[in-house]
Amino acid sequence: MDKLTLYIANKNYSSWSFRPWMALTGVSIDFEEVLIPLDHLSGNPNIKAVSPSGRMPMLQHGALKIWESFAIIEYVAELYPEAGLLPNDRGERALARSVSMEMMSSFRALRSACPMNIRRPKGKIALPDGVSADISRIETIWRDLLQKSGGPFLFGAFSGADAMFAPVVNRFDIYDLVSSADILAYMSAMKAHPAWRKWEEAARAEPWIVQEDEV
Amino acid sequence: MDKLTLYIANKNYSSWSFRPWMALTGVSIDFEEVLIPLDHLSGNPNIKAVSPSGRMPMLQHGALKIWESFAIIEYVAELYPEAGLLPNDRGERALARSVSMEMMSSFRALRSACPMNIRRPKGKIALPDGVSADISRIETIWRDLLQKSGGPFLFGAFSGADAMFAPVVNRFDIYDLVSSADILAYMSAMKAHPAWRKWEEAARAEPWIVQEDEV
Ligand SMILES: N[C@@H](CCC(=O)N[C@@H](CS)C(=O)NCC(=O)O)C(=O)O
Ligand SMILES: N[C@@H](CCC(=O)N[C@@H](CS)C(=O)NCC(=O)O)C(=O)O
Repeated sequence: MDKLTLYIANKNYSSWSFRPWMALTGVSIDFEEVLIPLDHLSGNPNIKAVSPSGRMPMLQHGALKIWESFAIIEYVAELYPEAGLLPNDRGERALARSVSMEMMSSFRALRSACPMNIRRPKGKIALPDGVSADISRIETIWRDLLQKSGGPFLFGAFSGADAMFAPVVNRFDIYDLVSSADILAYMSAMKAHPAWRKWEEAARAEPWIVQEDEV
Repeated sequence: MDKLTLYIANKNYSSWSFRPWMALTGVSIDFEEVLIPLDHLSGNPNIKAVSPSGRMPMLQHGALKIWESFAIIEYVAELYPEAGLLPNDRGERALARSVSMEMMSSFRALRSACPMNIRRPKGKIALPDGVSADISRIETIWRDLLQKSGGPFLFGAFSGADAMFAPVVNRFDIYDLVSSADILAYMSAMKAHPAWRKWEEAARAEPWIVQEDEV
């Protein structure tokens, strides 16, 4: 089989890159990584040159290019059905897709007010309208799934759905947005995952500063 | 098997409802339909009462509730693998997911400036920044897939990916946004599809006006 190559942007800031990277690394799938730093001033010509959508992440497999974070996870789940990227039960798989796609399509207020920033020290900021509704909807999603599965991850063992929410775990943490014990326990499980720690270590070592994401 | 019940909002305006409805109807899958009219003034309490995300569409199957338009299509594709909602080839299926999820997560400028409106007579409007970049990216997506498949639909026969773009076909049409022959031919194929015509007829018969979507 051709090797999988995952193209990503900066580990400190690229929330969409983190998702498939954490999913694949979290279930021990082997891939090559190519990192193209975000460069807002020049409009990211290097990213546009490789990715059909002009955005990261993108997975290349032979001649095939797959973009959109969750489409990448679906493809790798098909290649490695035993890896556990998606739940085995059809109803649970449908729920994993519902919550992963809700993550992809929603929570704009939270995402724009509170950029992912792995290195940032913990500290509150003023929150614009809409952010608290996003936070409480995400808490409901997590709580419902954790109660059903028993945890420690959304569907019991770590899966692609957890990876889709990984950047939200960072945001809740660094901007100090939540305080319920069950939500904090889930965040601790995520932050203790070996894949998270590996990403975090690499993010901390990056030299680039993206000023607009430093809030 | 329990029957499938698809909850949708107004056919004239609800672009996200149109997608799974057109997908399921387009491949002749039997389902019950429940329509809950959008009511912006009251914050859509009726929708919030049935849908976990507080939005339409939502598919109910026994006790299971599935939301997000493309998650609904994925679920029904698993129930009816022979229906052709997703391409059979793994690489094509990955592409179908990439473009469907790009639709879900992107094209905000187009979506907010040019609301879907089935009844609206054709006519141009002034376009804010960003809309023409969205239009040209969508034209590229369609053109690449149509050239590869030979048409008339994105992957040859009608599939879920076409349904994901159905509201864009309406927008391109009513706001007169495109002029290339290949793009117009694809739009004609979509508008001639029996599922499109059935939705359109019902939309035209609806009594509700949503003022903010009349632009
Ligand atoms: N919905 C996409 C979002 C991808 C995205 O927005 N990526 C950002 C980096 S986190 C990007 O490439 N931005 C560069 C640009 O827009 O020029 C996904 O799920 O992959
Ligand atoms: N990403 C969602 C979008 C769903 C959505 O925004 N639905 C609209 C109707 S088209 C809605 O329910 N709006 C009601 C509200 O937000 O209160 C999907 O793909 O299903």
